[in-house]
Amino acid sequence: MSRLCPAVNKSSVLGQCTPGNNLSSAPQMGWGDLGVFGHPAKETPNLDAMAAQGMLLTNFYTANPLCSPSRAALLTGRLPVRNGFYTTNGHARNAYTPQEIVGGISKDEILLPAMLKKNGYVSKIVGKWHLGHRPAYLPLENGFDEWFGAPNCHFGPYNSSITPNIPVYNNSEMLGRYYEEFPINVKTGESNLTQIFLKEGLEFIHRQTKAQQPFFLYWAPDATHTPLYASRSFLGKSQRGRYGDAVMELDYSVGQILSSLQSLGIEKNTFVFFTSDNGAALTSRTNGGSNGPFLCGKETTFEGGMREPAIAWWPGNIKEGTVSQQLANVMDLFSTCLSLAGISAPDDRVLDGLDLTPLHGRLPIFYYRGNEMMAVRVGQFKAHYWTWTNSMEEFKQGVNFCAGQDVPGVTTHNQTEYTLQPIIFHLGRDPGEKFPLSVLTKEYLDALRSVSAVVEYHEKTLVPGVPQLNMCDQAVMNWAPAGCEKLGKCLDAPKSKPWKCSWPH
Amino acid sequence: MSRLCPAVNKSSVLGQCTPGNNLSSAPQMGWGDLGVFGHPAKETPNLDAMAAQGMLLTNFYTANPLCSPSRAALLTGRLPVRNGFYTTNGHARNAYTPQEIVGGISKDEILLPAMLKKNGYVSKIVGKWHLGHRPAYLPLENGFDEWFGAPNCHFGPYNSSITPNIPVYNNSEMLGRYYEEFPINVKTGESNLTQIFLKEGLEFIHRQTKAQQPFFLYWAPDATHTPLYASRSFLGKSQRGRYGDAVMELDYSVGQILSSLQSLGIEKNTFVFFTSDNGAALTSRTNGGSNGPFLCGKETTFEGGMREPAIAWWPGNIKEGTVSQQLANVMDLFSTCLSLAGISAPDDRVLDGLDLTPLHGRLPIFYYRGNEMMAVRVGQFKAHYWTWTNSMEEFKQGVNFCAGQDVPGVTTHNQTEYTLQPIIFHLGRDPGEKFPLSVLTKEYLDALRSVSAVVEYHEKTLVPGVPQLNMCDQAVMNWAPAGCEKLGKCLDAPKSKPWKCSWPH
Repeated sequence: MSRLCPAVNKSSVLGQCTPGNNLSSAPQMGWGDLGVFGHPAKETPNLDAMAAQGMLLTNFYTANPLCSPSRAALLTGRLPVRNGFYTTNGHARNAYTPQEIVGGISKDEILLPAMLKKNGYVSKIVGKWHLGHRPAYLPLENGFDEWFGAPNCHFGPYNSSITPNIPVYNNSEMLGRYYEEFPINVKTGESNLTQIFLKEGLEFIHRQTKAQQPFFLYWAPDATHTPLYASRSFLGKSQRGRYGDAVMELDYSVGQILSSLQSLGIEKNTFVFFTSDNGAALTSRTNGGSNGPFLCGKETTFEGGMREPAIAWWPGNIKEGTVSQQLANVMDLFSTCLSLAGISAPDDRVLDGLDLTPLHGRLPIFYYRGNEMMAVRVGQFKAHYWTWTNSMEEFKQGVNFCAGQDVPGVTTHNQTEYTLQPIIFHLGRDPGEKFPLSVLTKEYLDALRSVSAVVEYHEKTLVPGVPQLNMCDQAVMNWAPAGCEKLGKCLDAPKSKPWKCSWPH
Repeated sequence: MSRLCPAVNKSSVLGQCTPGNNLSSAPQMGWGDLGVFGHPAKETPNLDAMAAQGMLLTNFYTANPLCSPSRAALLTGRLPVRNGFYTTNGHARNAYTPQEIVGGISKDEILLPAMLKKNGYVSKIVGKWHLGHRPAYLPLENGFDEWFGAPNCHFGPYNSSITPNIPVYNNSEMLGRYYEEFPINVKTGESNLTQIFLKEGLEFIHRQTKAQQPFFLYWAPDATHTPLYASRSFLGKSQRGRYGDAVMELDYSVGQILSSLQSLGIEKNTFVFFTSDNGAALTSRTNGGSNGPFLCGKETTFEGGMREPAIAWWPGNIKEGTVSQQLANVMDLFSTCLSLAGISAPDDRVLDGLDLTPLHGRLPIFYYRGNEMMAVRVGQFKAHYWTWTNSMEEFKQGVNFCAGQDVPGVTTHNQTEYTLQPIIFHLGRDPGEKFPLSVLTKEYLDALRSVSAVVEYHEKTLVPGVPQLNMCDQAVMNWAPAGCEKLGKCLDAPKSKPWKCSWPH
């Protein structure tokens, strides 16, 4: 996912006040997919220009190597293990919100748009929601004022005659479904969805600017996720195949949003942030993204799974061409946006992010699968307590999260425990996690000491949330979303037969 | 190696004429070592700025995955297999010029500085020469007017009491030796060599500018090759360890050269080019460079061994922020510099480079080890006719040219022949050479057809040069370089006992 967040400027530069937050998030675009992060195709001129005009963050992390928990963390400022976006079915499993999922974002959580409302912000999400699709979990029930997009990610079966196709909502009612009112041609890869999402985002920005109301736009298209698509003017344009076409259209859209802010004259009041919700999936032979120099990809807690492209843009406030090496995290955006909006963060709960606006020491980065802390990064040192890529059975069937990469004892296909003697990498010298520090060195012992203290404190103080991603049920799928009656598009739901979801990764 | 080449501007902008060529080359700095090519440490502000002010070339290749042949190709504009910088000892072996080497650059070759002399250019090489160290092979015998630096690369044994330490020449006479008059502390990593090379380069630029004489500076320091060193002000400064310190000092030096050209007011007359002579070596646990998303490194014909960082800089002539996707090659610099200097290229021999100044269709890229064409790139398609990383014996001893990477059937430890059915990658979709095209597809057959035509023509017309790197002899080492008498630093050479050099890779 890519996130664009026009945000608050308390001391408005132009004497007006149209503060905005733009968070843009691209599903599974990797660190190395942008030209500015080294992709040799160099096909992201708009994102590259955004970085040249703003700040590039080279040590920016997501909170989970999968989409739903990452997005829950962004909007709550809390680790998925706290906010409930995890599973305890099986050990160390990544989970998300397919149509069968029973759970969703807990009512006990406070989301960023609900907080921003305190200072008069109007918030809209455009694109993929992914925090639960049952009525109580939808965006308008959780702080957003407007929504245009789909509740779930777009997995197969595509254009199914048996299960419901993913609906597209306009606010609280469905407008239609993928493949039906919103065509996607899986064969040719043509679809106008990204253009539609772009138009919705731009219209919101224009409307809010005209109304002189501060706004928060969370622009989260579902491109570049599979099935890959692009509109006709982008299809076949990339050196990189259809994945590249989707990246180019996403890049174009971000460029349109930025230039629209500029032509409206609100760019100096608008904080924009671009990132992705997990690393690129390396499982596809022809349609994969790039995680640059990092190990493995999506689904894993290696750097390729969780280090993300990140660009902050705010003309007049962020010096152009800035590069930040600071460890930072998608959960920091919660605290940062609140701070920019002049709103105090909630004090009744643990937050895992920091306000990035002041300079300060950094929190560690935690790498989770399910409720297992697989690894932790403190400064330049990353300690792996557990290693796992995917299972040997899957691997033998050709599913490989680390295509072309193999670090013995590290990219393991059995869940391998190193809690007594973690594998430690120095990510400055070895960003690709290829050369573990020798356990006999002073450097290892010093690193272990500082990491252990952090882990001990974290584990002692952690209160896990109720896991929302344990139960599945065919009855909860998008059979009859609100608004389906008017359209004559309600489907009959089967009887409820809940089961413990099976999460293979 | 890194190459800086201030070059000719025929129609001088400032009404004066101090055209220069600056080629700067860094030994074994990888594609991914620069911030602008995606290194997460982002510690090359000067090279990144050079790219922002000039042109980044993302499809730029060296002519060989090892230093000597690569440099011979740069200066002759010809493939090593033509200019004699290869070996036929063993199949498909990389060779270079250690002190025992008998051969060197053939008298039949014409080097770039000899050609530039026709239009009044004064040429200097600063740093590592590497085209043979016996008297007839040295720079001043081969077209250069000035030289400051070492004839060989700086391999062990370091500070040896048995074999001669590498001499440092000032023009035609030695000034001293590494570890003796030119200290390198292998333990602390401190040495001022890069600073000395920088000073020599800057003095030459100043002198030529004052004299209003066109110049060609080939600035080729031996950092970032092992043994790694940096001057005191850079030691310990990098996130990446000592390798990073050396990279930072190289980056600083390039910045000093560029700002010096600007303060002299000759930047609009000066074409500067930066590149490296081979990919980063991935064999070191703690001191390796990065080849970004590419497969394997130095010594191999995979992309990591031969795709190089490349930046062209020429204010007022090259539009700032340009990115070129054109296939280009270190041998193109020969033709390009001649063209910029208004000199016709020699017409009595085959040249493997093109003048990059006009827009034109691209030559293929040939990937050689010894006299074996291992692979060829035509457009986006790269066909491997032979694969080999290093031998199984070496690999079992821990030497790995593809650390952390393993593509079955591709990163082989036996020399594996695929001439009947080459392995073909689409480098646009798959820059990391991980997913061979299926031989059953139309895409494979089409690619094979166009690649085969290129290979057939190349092989039919190829006249290999006499191999210069077959014979070794202890007697030819730097025992008594010119000038050693004055310094009392001549050493006794042993009797000549030539042998066929053994090249393991």
